[in-house]
Amino acid sequence: MHVLITGAAGFLGQRLVHALAACRELDGQPLSRLTLVDQVEAPAPEIAGVECVARAVDIAAPGALDASLDEHPQVIFHLAAVVSSAAEADLDLGTTVNFEATRALLEGCRARKLSSTRLIMASSVAVYGGDLPDVVEDMTALTPQSSYGTQKAMCELLITDYSRRGLVDGRVLRLPTIVIRPGRPNAAASSFASSILREPLNGEDAVCPVPTDLELFVMSPRRVTEALIHGAEVAGEAFGPSRALMLPGITVSVAEMLEALRETGGEAALARVRHEPDPRIEAIVASWPARFINARARELGFQGDANLRDIVESYLGERD
Amino acid sequence: MHVLITGAAGFLGQRLVHALAACRELDGQPLSRLTLVDQVEAPAPEIAGVECVARAVDIAAPGALDASLDEHPQVIFHLAAVVSSAAEADLDLGTTVNFEATRALLEGCRARKLSSTRLIMASSVAVYGGDLPDVVEDMTALTPQSSYGTQKAMCELLITDYSRRGLVDGRVLRLPTIVIRPGRPNAAASSFASSILREPLNGEDAVCPVPTDLELFVMSPRRVTEALIHGAEVAGEAFGPSRALMLPGITVSVAEMLEALRETGGEAALARVRHEPDPRIEAIVASWPARFINARARELGFQGDANLRDIVESYLGERD
Repeated sequence: MHVLITGAAGFLGQRLVHALAACRELDGQPLSRLTLVDQVEAPAPEIAGVECVARAVDIAAPGALDASLDEHPQVIFHLAAVVSSAAEADLDLGTTVNFEATRALLEGCRARKLSSTRLIMASSVAVYGGDLPDVVEDMTALTPQSSYGTQKAMCELLITDYSRRGLVDGRVLRLPTIVIRPGRPNAAASSFASSILREPLNGEDAVCPVPTDLELFVMSPRRVTEALIHGAEVAGEAFGPSRALMLPGITVSVAEMLEALRETGGEAALARVRHEPDPRIEAIVASWPARFINARARELGFQGDANLRDIVESYLGERD
Repeated sequence: MHVLITGAAGFLGQRLVHALAACRELDGQPLSRLTLVDQVEAPAPEIAGVECVARAVDIAAPGALDASLDEHPQVIFHLAAVVSSAAEADLDLGTTVNFEATRALLEGCRARKLSSTRLIMASSVAVYGGDLPDVVEDMTALTPQSSYGTQKAMCELLITDYSRRGLVDGRVLRLPTIVIRPGRPNAAASSFASSILREPLNGEDAVCPVPTDLELFVMSPRRVTEALIHGAEVAGEAFGPSRALMLPGITVSVAEMLEALRETGGEAALARVRHEPDPRIEAIVASWPARFINARARELGFQGDANLRDIVESYLGERD
């Protein structure tokens, strides 16, 4: 099985590389080749019997993926993207990387007749927005309120249409907020969601910028990685009239996150969280839907975390 | 008021031209200039005090609309499109005309800072498809099952995002099946919907290829033209988080259409309709949703036909 990963140097890309390296197979077929593409040369693992190639390319450049597609990958994980805040700050950059590069990838598959190649794209909860119902379902309209969400929603439509036409075998997974991300706080509006757990568990202070009754729809890095792999293994036709679905995260309030922190790290850990309301962050995060009925994802066998405590313990297990 | 119309030589374009010529104003401002763009030179009416210019351009060609946009139109009706069957037969053609040309139009407005220019695009019931609920609402997801519907849905997302960013003031109206179209039967799957009324009313035979219990969501040419004009006059912000909405058609069964024919044209007219089932046409037409709750359109003051009889009588009135 020849697997191509775009955005392979990123957090999720590297998790996926390691997961594939660990099991050395995909959909029951032994892994034969791993092509890692990113702006920088992605760290490539040594895997016995598997050819690993890392290429530093700008996927926004014309023909950027030609060499990789000429090798006829059987599975493509398309994770490369410009993040939400950058796409909002620079419309052209977001359009080029998030939309045009995806279209070029689809056209590249079409030109090479890679009709059975499975293309798994990461989409986002940002495709939702506006006046949403209390609970979002599979048939809730996408009314994104950001250019990032717009670009992802357009890619979803294209991937469904190219799949319907038999030009590629696409699948799109909308990712919940990932908790607990490793590393340091960053500029993302959702950064606090990992930070208020991660920092105190590591003996550091954290800031909570939102009210504790605010709810989030979250998924652990482990479950997201498993979902990407499952997305490559499930039959494309099983997706039905749309190749895109929301992954089954779990709904948690900030208060529940802090309670999980207390249960795991004790009062001392909880005391490290300082409450400093930031209306700008609250406005962004509160606009994301937090309650979903993931009927299609569950029918297709995608699995979420059991509960928040599992998420915290999974982080501690990986950290140690 | 300077108005630009793309697809101005088409059926709807010409209706719109004549409606504007008749009232010589838009949104309370006198019409000053009418720029008509189409592949062929559109018939341009003589209107006292209004400069009418018709340009034959291929809107798919790079810079095709530059000259027209340089004149800073205040309202743009974007009706030019490749129809459903052609877009399905030729993906590249549909992408270029239906999607790329719309994007070029948006980029053209952006480059010229036409942020207050009102852009009204005609979309279609074809943005819906797949496993739809019995009644489609404003927040029902778009899962188009054709490349035409996909291209239109992508344009809807782009127009909403460009409007949200203040780059243009866009509005998208999804058109029901238009009944009664003037002229002759054509290759469209929905052609019969006009034909089974129009031909018998004109003393000719017609073929009904679908079961009489099949339902359609229809709107008269007059109401569609009024809706396009209303779409230019209503405040853009009133559209809310999405600039796209379905126009308020009415739900009618083929049996009801035949009954309206009998009421208007008598038994002789009804007898001119021959029933010859065509499963191919039935499959396409039955996939279009026929029942909608058009809450947003009605709140914004868009008006549908009162009933089928009005539609038939409006056709007879225009014909005579």
